[in-house]
Amino acid sequence: MKSNTNVLPRPLRGIIPPLVTPLLDRDTLDAAGLERLIEHILAGGVHGLFVLGTTGELPSLSYRLRYELIERVCGQVKGRVPVLVGITDTSFVESVKIARKAQDAGAQAVVLAPPYYFPAGQAELLEYLKHLTPELPLPVFLYNMPSYTKLVYEPETIRTAADFPGIVGIKDSSGNMIYFRRLQSLLKDHPDFSLLIGREELLAEAVLFGGHGCVCGGANLIPELYVDLYNAACSKDLPKVESLHKKVMELSNAIYNVGRYESSFLKGLKCALSCMGICNDFMAEPFHRFRRAEHKVIQRYVKELGITPER
Amino acid sequence: MKSNTNVLPRPLRGIIPPLVTPLLDRDTLDAAGLERLIEHILAGGVHGLFVLGTTGELPSLSYRLRYELIERVCGQVKGRVPVLVGITDTSFVESVKIARKAQDAGAQAVVLAPPYYFPAGQAELLEYLKHLTPELPLPVFLYNMPSYTKLVYEPETIRTAADFPGIVGIKDSSGNMIYFRRLQSLLKDHPDFSLLIGREELLAEAVLFGGHGCVCGGANLIPELYVDLYNAACSKDLPKVESLHKKVMELSNAIYNVGRYESSFLKGLKCALSCMGICNDFMAEPFHRFRRAEHKVIQRYVKELGITPER
Amino acid sequence: MKSNTNVLPRPLRGIIPPLVTPLLDRDTLDAAGLERLIEHILAGGVHGLFVLGTTGELPSLSYRLRYELIERVCGQVKGRVPVLVGITDTSFVESVKIARKAQDAGAQAVVLAPPYYFPAGQAELLEYLKHLTPELPLPVFLYNMPSYTKLVYEPETIRTAADFPGIVGIKDSSGNMIYFRRLQSLLKDHPDFSLLIGREELLAEAVLFGGHGCVCGGANLIPELYVDLYNAACSKDLPKVESLHKKVMELSNAIYNVGRYESSFLKGLKCALSCMGICNDFMAEPFHRFRRAEHKVIQRYVKELGITPER
Amino acid sequence: MKSNTNVLPRPLRGIIPPLVTPLLDRDTLDAAGLERLIEHILAGGVHGLFVLGTTGELPSLSYRLRYELIERVCGQVKGRVPVLVGITDTSFVESVKIARKAQDAGAQAVVLAPPYYFPAGQAELLEYLKHLTPELPLPVFLYNMPSYTKLVYEPETIRTAADFPGIVGIKDSSGNMIYFRRLQSLLKDHPDFSLLIGREELLAEAVLFGGHGCVCGGANLIPELYVDLYNAACSKDLPKVESLHKKVMELSNAIYNVGRYESSFLKGLKCALSCMGICNDFMAEPFHRFRRAEHKVIQRYVKELGITPER
Repeated sequence: MKSNTNVLPRPLRGIIPPLVTPLLDRDTLDAAGLERLIEHILAGGVHGLFVLGTTGELPSLSYRLRYELIERVCGQVKGRVPVLVGITDTSFVESVKIARKAQDAGAQAVVLAPPYYFPAGQAELLEYLKHLTPELPLPVFLYNMPSYTKLVYEPETIRTAADFPGIVGIKDSSGNMIYFRRLQSLLKDHPDFSLLIGREELLAEAVLFGGHGCVCGGANLIPELYVDLYNAACSKDLPKVESLHKKVMELSNAIYNVGRYESSFLKGLKCALSCMGICNDFMAEPFHRFRRAEHKVIQRYVKELGITPER
Repeated sequence: MKSNTNVLPRPLRGIIPPLVTPLLDRDTLDAAGLERLIEHILAGGVHGLFVLGTTGELPSLSYRLRYELIERVCGQVKGRVPVLVGITDTSFVESVKIARKAQDAGAQAVVLAPPYYFPAGQAELLEYLKHLTPELPLPVFLYNMPSYTKLVYEPETIRTAADFPGIVGIKDSSGNMIYFRRLQSLLKDHPDFSLLIGREELLAEAVLFGGHGCVCGGANLIPELYVDLYNAACSKDLPKVESLHKKVMELSNAIYNVGRYESSFLKGLKCALSCMGICNDFMAEPFHRFRRAEHKVIQRYVKELGITPER
Repeated sequence: MKSNTNVLPRPLRGIIPPLVTPLLDRDTLDAAGLERLIEHILAGGVHGLFVLGTTGELPSLSYRLRYELIERVCGQVKGRVPVLVGITDTSFVESVKIARKAQDAGAQAVVLAPPYYFPAGQAELLEYLKHLTPELPLPVFLYNMPSYTKLVYEPETIRTAADFPGIVGIKDSSGNMIYFRRLQSLLKDHPDFSLLIGREELLAEAVLFGGHGCVCGGANLIPELYVDLYNAACSKDLPKVESLHKKVMELSNAIYNVGRYESSFLKGLKCALSCMGICNDFMAEPFHRFRRAEHKVIQRYVKELGITPER
Repeated sequence: MKSNTNVLPRPLRGIIPPLVTPLLDRDTLDAAGLERLIEHILAGGVHGLFVLGTTGELPSLSYRLRYELIERVCGQVKGRVPVLVGITDTSFVESVKIARKAQDAGAQAVVLAPPYYFPAGQAELLEYLKHLTPELPLPVFLYNMPSYTKLVYEPETIRTAADFPGIVGIKDSSGNMIYFRRLQSLLKDHPDFSLLIGREELLAEAVLFGGHGCVCGGANLIPELYVDLYNAACSKDLPKVESLHKKVMELSNAIYNVGRYESSFLKGLKCALSCMGICNDFMAEPFHRFRRAEHKVIQRYVKELGITPER
């Protein structure tokens, strides 16, 4: 019997970390690291787990490995929290295939950014969603990530799609808070539609003003920090929000800004997990793990921030 | 016995049409249309065939269908011209898999644009090529397509990669002739490195000044027009070049500019093939075939330009 | 005697509306409208006035008119609040000239976005600031407006420039709150450096978490709304903040989104002021005032939102 | 008596160098250098002179200096060739003012890129041209320079504007030859409308296939090279075209690619003129002249290419 008999909360609320994908090499999971990482994150009290997002290096992984990952994650989470699976793809047919694998494995929802090669217009994106969502066996979160996909789901597109059966929320990783605020306004009559912010630096303000939660990469490292901040924001405890938000910014400024690549976020995160002894820091092409000099900087930050596995 | 015992000419020269992928629906090839289209193109005297490019809607197709397409094309071409297979993918592992399928099917080369989701830098792209090319069983053409991939292979990157074993040429679809001229300068000591222009509107000038050939979508419609223009440019027959170039521009201005979508090129091309009775005009998501009004415009142009199957 | 004997508060805090420039035609100020507009705004209790920003159509105005505007505004404000004058220009020399006019007229500070034609790098921008600021007779606010200038002052550039004599703050209109939060982190040891958010939709969260104030276009229409929200955020009165923020979003969603031009913000704002009977809605090229259909929509919104001159 | 009694040829054909602006400092012309530079260029047999373009650092110069420059250039050219004056500005009123100065000084035409701060749409650009051109006392060349202005005059916009009284041609500096070829197609019934290519690397092919001439920065250095290439292309002398085109590419690859700034073109050009003893290499902000290391590289290239003043 599958664990997706679990009900997905509507709206989904809370901290849903985008799982880092531990790798031994470009096509081999670090299975032991994955197990440790999942238990580390769940111990922090998170409210869900998002596999195969940008943080999980989705587009760089083979389909075989994606399927193995979905199986392993669902198998280990065993319904303790909802599992959301990224099915973003340039190919409609492949998106449907992964969604079915996700259902079979016991996941609770799928996450979908726009197909990211061809320059589709908003009308074409809406038609794409209209064709695709009936084929998907699980509830769908849209995913706005314009810096990588180069296509935006415009607020009015989201507003229209929110009435399609099966579309239950959005994860916005644009960093553009005006976009997020505009979504809130347009969807104020859809109380079940989940508005998740995709950037941890904006978790505090997003939740304080009505957002439902956050997909935050840093929760791979210190899940309880983000859970505590989420709870403080929900209970409008401003002094606590400010103090925890400050810690979130410290981690972000340190771990995500080494080397000043556009990919520093990903490299720093995986490197820090390796410094913590949780998993391997191998990265699939086109990226590579931090070399020695950058590794040392991350190691120092990990110590300074006190994010050691024993804490 | 496989047909890729055929030698790939070095440099590859001439007209290499990027094959349209005829579809009955999003995951079903129009097999009869594909057969007609291949014979129509080969009858025009082209020098190669490029399957699974942007014109072939590569990123929108399932892997199963890509493999079927490769098999069918190679099986029908039977070594009459070299077949080049697009292996561009965000995943290293999937690129290798398609390249092996291409070899098994008897293709002569593969074509590779940068992985197009993550913002890789030039150093990372070079490292990607350094890791990937030894795994590929066939010669590699690089593919510059910045408007879709959002990543450029900079001229100096191409210059460096031209010395990697197995990299034998580039197809430049940027439309930026300064880029193409700069490549020619940087590679003047690599006479075997094939410099192909990816835009038919620039075929005349590219070849007249030392380019080796053209990957031109219009050659799905009237292959002999582009072959004639290529030959006229090779033999420096300027009056003939000018007269044929004018016809190329007429077709381009008519067929590729209906509706003024960024995707008008693709939609017009497939629609015209359908008007000519060659194959179905179904398009995979995120696009859709032209609706009635636009179809009528294309039909009129097909008549005016005289591109009927019986010509 | 000049009014800039007034001390500019350090850091400058509060609501500093970017003044709309009332015009009768492309080179004639609507002097009566300007007078009404200034008094309307000052009556709302604002903390400063910013002339010649993007909202003031700075780049579209002749220098003669810019000078006349500076004179008139300073002459009428008479030191009641600090006046900040936009000196952004592609020409270093013209920026200095306007800054001197501003000082002569009695303004308290100048505001400077990057020179916006040539693709300068961050090192060149820093050098530009190093050369320019000693020539400026008034304190300088930097102005981050990447959607229009296409050049960003990167956070590290701001951090370095914050130590240049005369640079006293930044107005960030990017809408990217991660940028703003990062600035706060980098400048935490510069308590006198003013961090102003340039988008009213983000006023609440910016000030609640340590920002000093907001340059908000809507304060041309209802200044007291933004002043009240600023005060509520300063005193951490969350329920009041939420209720006023909701009104800010209502205005923004209504007035700034008619017609869905990239310039809808400017056109809607000027049209609403005209509907309120405050000033003319003429716009300098390349824009033009809303035509009848859009004007009617704005008129309806002005009524619904209750922003009438008599309120 | 003014020299603009000279008739401007329709269409204007040939080599029209974009004049470098020799400076002693940011607001002082190098008057002697300017005189030398003009005589050096005219001695090469060029067909016109374009002052205040991108190459002339137009946006970085004060209006006072722009006016002085126009006076000096027209005064020295004395009608020997037509003088075209750049009037591109974000302010309509300032564009008209410079155009009048140009007429007073005896210039033959003006050159106009889109106003480059606000995001105007194509309909707004057309309306802008409709309002502006009747106010201009001289014939107008449009100027397509999207990498700097971030606004394109789309081909259909040019087609429409070509029927406005006073608009006599376009200078296209996009580097996108498909754009240029499309313009030729759209304007084939406007034989008097001048189609000038703005990139010297494309001079050969532009003129060979019907373009009327080239605005080439390198003609500040070796005007006769470009004049010879133009003549060879006009007379369809392919071997000569190829040999001269090769020299053009050598100069471009050497002089314009030192340091790999986006501004390397401008810096290299001015540095080379200084190495040749023609004029000062001071650059207005936001740029600065090449420092010693880069200066040495340019000096070496100047020698190798044989572009010495005595040649």
